[in-house]
Amino acid sequence: MNRDLAAARDLAATVAVQAGRLQLERHDTLRVGAPKAHANDVVSDVDIASERLIVDAITAAWPDDAVQAEEGHGRPGTSGWMWVVDPLDGTRNYISRTGPWSVCVALYEGDQPRVAVVHEPVADETFSAVDGGGAFLNGVSLQVTGGPSLDKALVGISFQPNPATKDRAGKVIRDLLPVSGDIRRLPAALNLAYQAAGRLDGGLCLDTNLWDIAAGALIAREAGVILGGHGDDFTPELTIGAAVDLWPELSALVRAVLVS
Amino acid sequence: MNRDLAAARDLAATVAVQAGRLQLERHDTLRVGAPKAHANDVVSDVDIASERLIVDAITAAWPDDAVQAEEGHGRPGTSGWMWVVDPLDGTRNYISRTGPWSVCVALYEGDQPRVAVVHEPVADETFSAVDGGGAFLNGVSLQVTGGPSLDKALVGISFQPNPATKDRAGKVIRDLLPVSGDIRRLPAALNLAYQAAGRLDGGLCLDTNLWDIAAGALIAREAGVILGGHGDDFTPELTIGAAVDLWPELSALVRAVLVS
Repeated sequence: MNRDLAAARDLAATVAVQAGRLQLERHDTLRVGAPKAHANDVVSDVDIASERLIVDAITAAWPDDAVQAEEGHGRPGTSGWMWVVDPLDGTRNYISRTGPWSVCVALYEGDQPRVAVVHEPVADETFSAVDGGGAFLNGVSLQVTGGPSLDKALVGISFQPNPATKDRAGKVIRDLLPVSGDIRRLPAALNLAYQAAGRLDGGLCLDTNLWDIAAGALIAREAGVILGGHGDDFTPELTIGAAVDLWPELSALVRAVLVS
Repeated sequence: MNRDLAAARDLAATVAVQAGRLQLERHDTLRVGAPKAHANDVVSDVDIASERLIVDAITAAWPDDAVQAEEGHGRPGTSGWMWVVDPLDGTRNYISRTGPWSVCVALYEGDQPRVAVVHEPVADETFSAVDGGGAFLNGVSLQVTGGPSLDKALVGISFQPNPATKDRAGKVIRDLLPVSGDIRRLPAALNLAYQAAGRLDGGLCLDTNLWDIAAGALIAREAGVILGGHGDDFTPELTIGAAVDLWPELSALVRAVLVS
């Protein structure tokens, strides 16, 4: 079934901005629930209200689509299209006020991402992409070219703070930090969006979930960022992104650390 | 000579907010100079204009005080009082738009910090302290107590990205990340200010300069954060901070890594 992808992107952007506004308005009164899988895996009432807002808007517009969402408001569909929603990527940053977070909405046709939005509420920045239609920041086109050598590169790193992943991430940082320009820890979606905007020269995401990277990866790819994992395809387990000139050096180093 | 410390704090806060406003207004048109000591050691015209604004205001109010400032607007004094100014701590975050930065102003009497202000322009947060008078965030008193065990702690890390320090920082992260709750990379002043606010449970700053930590350290100490380095005194080379219950475990681990 054909779909107006520009209309889908506009809806995704509208609801992401609404969710971001809710997150700012309720920042001073949020309530944090008990940890989920591990001590760092927390969720607030604002995550849940944000997801409800987004999923309700999607359902009203496209009731036959499937929805995959982090906080449990997902559902199967019949249209062949699936929305992948992370209402608040970077919950611990949001709760602790120690770093940025974002709202992520992606639309898949089968297993192909077709539309993506990543919205950062504090700076009011909306990164978006349509498959084959380029990437944008607040309506301005994004295009990454070239890239520095690794010793001058600013590299993003994202990982879930569960025990096994922290150990793997620690190994990567130990080897990558001395030979790169510098490293920034970021939630996965902003890591990828900032690569699309050329703020980061490259980055890696370890042991994330599909909803953490679905939107950001399409935006990065549409901006010209090279993406891969252990092989040519990136996965939630490993997503490496880099400007084209940086890609061989960064991907070789990360892969060598993670298989050693 | 006696000094009205509350008046000094009010002036420091006023000029820090003015400098922060200038940084926001000129964010889209900033010009970045050639690297200083190493590839990551960059300065923008906004750093310099911010320092000029702060130093001019201090000079007008207290012409006999000394000023130590990162970008070269310092001068000797005759009063025995010295202002320590970092007009923009986190320049690469500011330039790359990948993280927070702050404006730092501290006032020393001899070698004793007596007044401190750290201002974060994006969130419009002003952290301040007067020696013996407590720490405040936007006028609200800050007091840290207790603290979690290391495996649940959120720990800040700050370091200059020169080659030797990146290697030391990589070793610390390699050992600290798996046994702590999680790590956040932050500019030094916000690392210390966020400890004062209880957003971070502890943190360390490696190979900074006095102007990076002067203000933040007084704010942290006044909020009840325990501070030290290799010994009981912290230094620009090593500043460890933690809530009292976390201090023994965090400081022992960091010291062990850095002397090994």
